Amino acid sequence: MSGEGQIFVLSGPPGAGKSTIATRVLQDMPDLAYSVSLTTRQPRPGEQDGVDYHFVSREDFQARITAGEMAEYEEIFGNLYGTSEKIVRRALGQGQDLFLDTDVNGAEQLQKRFPDGVFIFLLPPSRKVLEDRLRGRATEDESQVRQRLERVRYELTKAKNYTHLVVNDNLEKAVAEVEAIITASRRRTQRHLKLLEEFQAS
Amino acid sequence: MSGEGQIFVLSGPPGAGKSTIATRVLQDMPDLAYSVSLTTRQPRPGEQDGVDYHFVSREDFQARITAGEMAEYEEIFGNLYGTSEKIVRRALGQGQDLFLDTDVNGAEQLQKRFPDGVFIFLLPPSRKVLEDRLRGRATEDESQVRQRLERVRYELTKAKNYTHLVVNDNLEKAVAEVEAIITASRRRTQRHLKLLEEFQAS
Repeated sequence: MSGEGQIFVLSGPPGAGKSTIATRVLQDMPDLAYSVSLTTRQPRPGEQDGVDYHFVSREDFQARITAGEMAEYEEIFGNLYGTSEKIVRRALGQGQDLFLDTDVNGAEQLQKRFPDGVFIFLLPPSRKVLEDRLRGRATEDESQVRQRLERVRYELTKAKNYTHLVVNDNLEKAVAEVEAIITASRRRTQRHLKLLEEFQAS
Repeated sequence: MSGEGQIFVLSGPPGAGKSTIATRVLQDMPDLAYSVSLTTRQPRPGEQDGVDYHFVSREDFQARITAGEMAEYEEIFGNLYGTSEKIVRRALGQGQDLFLDTDVNGAEQLQKRFPDGVFIFLLPPSRKVLEDRLRGRATEDESQVRQRLERVRYELTKAKNYTHLVVNDNLEKAVAEVEAIITASRRRTQRHLKLLEEFQAS
């Protein structure tokens, strides 16, 4: 179809169900590739290098920042997270659509570089549900939960800049909606002007 | 969700499969209402007044034009076709999403009045397939076919102004794509600013 690939960015507060939805969408849409982020944080049990993240040293990450390679990056709780612009541009140039999973600041930086990208903000059904989900995470103590709720407040102030908003009050519905947004974006006329020209000339 | 309904307009050259797809989408999405057009042409066998079209006299139609009631209208092969703006605005005001089936000139007029609307252009897989489909219609003789192919040429020059382009090379895929475009548009952030505000305030 259109030559260039496009980026689909999913953000949302922790506890909104972002990872679950990302996994499902990527399973359902094999022509969509996950853009693996770089991070300096330690792998959690079960996480694989090159699949969940590219786990790199702080020195390595900072060298990439200096080289201008990072499309977006941020320090969260003392760890660096980011996306390599080099990898993204190469994939898009090959016609590959990319799915990115970034926080609101990363999305903001990406939106400047990829203004035609699709930016989806995932909202939990309510603040109460979100709080319960965060407290339910056995890995986090109360002060971490509070820190994350503060973060939620901040992330919500950025939601209005996204192109789309999906409410995760029902997982199947939310997955279907994210997939619909991707499918619809692929049908945007501006992506098929060449096809139109060819049809007219035929 | 958002208070106002929105309009979804499907256009495409005759023989692209517009009616088939419209019927399927309206069956699958019961919360989408078909905006019934007015026409002065005679009903074809099986067509029902108020369902397929509002069949009205030429005098009636022209009185509505004079009264400024028509959102768009056009004369095609000696018959008037159009959409009542009064009916559309009333439905949207009640939060009802509307599905419209208009030709390219109608869509152009609607786009001026409803700039946030979604405009989908349906393309047949190729000019050859289109020509075969038109010749296959037992109701039309060769000169009508030629007249319609001329019309196709004209309609294609307008396709680039649509927001989305769907190729009907596979009916199931085309239906799914039109439905995805509708679902995705319903998730546009600008339609949910109130929801975001409420969440932030909670």
